Amino acid sequence: MKVIELHASVTAGNDREAAALREEMRRQGTLLINLMSSPGAGKTTLLSRIIRDLPETGISVLEADIASTVDAGRIEALGAEAVQVHTDGMCHMDAGMTAEAVRALTPGRSRLAFLENVGNLICPAEYDTGAALSVMILSVPEGDDKPLKYPLIFQKSDALVITKLDALPYFDFQVEKCIQRAKKLNPKICIFPVSAKTGEGMAELERWLLESLKDWQEQSGR
Amino acid sequence: MKVIELHASVTAGNDREAAALREEMRRQGTLLINLMSSPGAGKTTLLSRIIRDLPETGISVLEADIASTVDAGRIEALGAEAVQVHTDGMCHMDAGMTAEAVRALTPGRSRLAFLENVGNLICPAEYDTGAALSVMILSVPEGDDKPLKYPLIFQKSDALVITKLDALPYFDFQVEKCIQRAKKLNPKICIFPVSAKTGEGMAELERWLLESLKDWQEQSGR
Repeated sequence: MKVIELHASVTAGNDREAAALREEMRRQGTLLINLMSSPGAGKTTLLSRIIRDLPETGISVLEADIASTVDAGRIEALGAEAVQVHTDGMCHMDAGMTAEAVRALTPGRSRLAFLENVGNLICPAEYDTGAALSVMILSVPEGDDKPLKYPLIFQKSDALVITKLDALPYFDFQVEKCIQRAKKLNPKICIFPVSAKTGEGMAELERWLLESLKDWQEQSGR
Repeated sequence: MKVIELHASVTAGNDREAAALREEMRRQGTLLINLMSSPGAGKTTLLSRIIRDLPETGISVLEADIASTVDAGRIEALGAEAVQVHTDGMCHMDAGMTAEAVRALTPGRSRLAFLENVGNLICPAEYDTGAALSVMILSVPEGDDKPLKYPLIFQKSDALVITKLDALPYFDFQVEKCIQRAKKLNPKICIFPVSAKTGEGMAELERWLLESLKDWQEQSGR
């Protein structure tokens, strides 16, 4: 019982911090996107492609990992700003941790900031990070049954990116079935099947990102 | 600070429950194996193959999921006993939950019981479930860098099964590099690269399972 009460209290405090961070990002005119997926679904590969495809946008990445600097190194090699966050074993990012990471960014350098959350389909979905949008990735090798097993993350995400589309011939993954299952949980979710390797579907995803950025900056009065 | 203290206390209570469950399973002569992986790494497919390959062994599966009965249905269709556990949003199984699931098994029916933990590389590694052995799965599409990012689960596992080996031609995954990284974290870990689809490597894994079962039953005086 005590555990449940504590969890509720932590969540309420987190929600306040998340709202404050969102307001601060709105003032700055920087769109912060919380990117969630299983380990190895291709978050960093997708971001690398977006950074290369949108060189004028000003993109930065907050890399949350339990350990290593592998991903931040890959992002920096592309010339984008990267901040590595080590979560000390924590299985998700909360708003306080995200705010601390955002403060490490060079002020005014980026307009679009991605929080690459810890690889996990469960815990990250339970915490508001303060991001304006949440985007989840599901990769083809993981299977089209994931909406049935991990419903919350599909419900909490504004967009679902289905990655590794080039691997479709080798796996028993039905894109239409996956889309139906996700839409049943969240009728408003935007869905983008892509291959960061071949570039298939990337233009639609990138258009959505740029439109979301434009909307956000209009809200900030820029 | 309170959160940390509570966590320590919960863990201590969990460790006592885990030791009691392990002792009970030893008396019964049933080997309980905690199977952990990311979502979609192929736990159920691997178990299905093992059940078909070892029809005389008496295998049961405890399926832990946040939602759905997809996996338990697949196991039952093979004639093995399956218990579906819904974790009510919990991202891992602890010893108390595992003990409850074990009590739902038909007494004396199985000698080898698998706990298919919630798909997550982080939280399950932090809790002793009371299983005699922990086995983790890493699938080829997830990438060979996972030991660098999720070290704890590699440290806590007795064996690592590298699955979807048939997908090697389509992904940039170096088996030797992955083995080196895992062994660096845990020199004693047993590693089995397999494809449940083609059967490659399954004989070695199944031999290890049967030897572990024999050792366990000798310890139980059977």
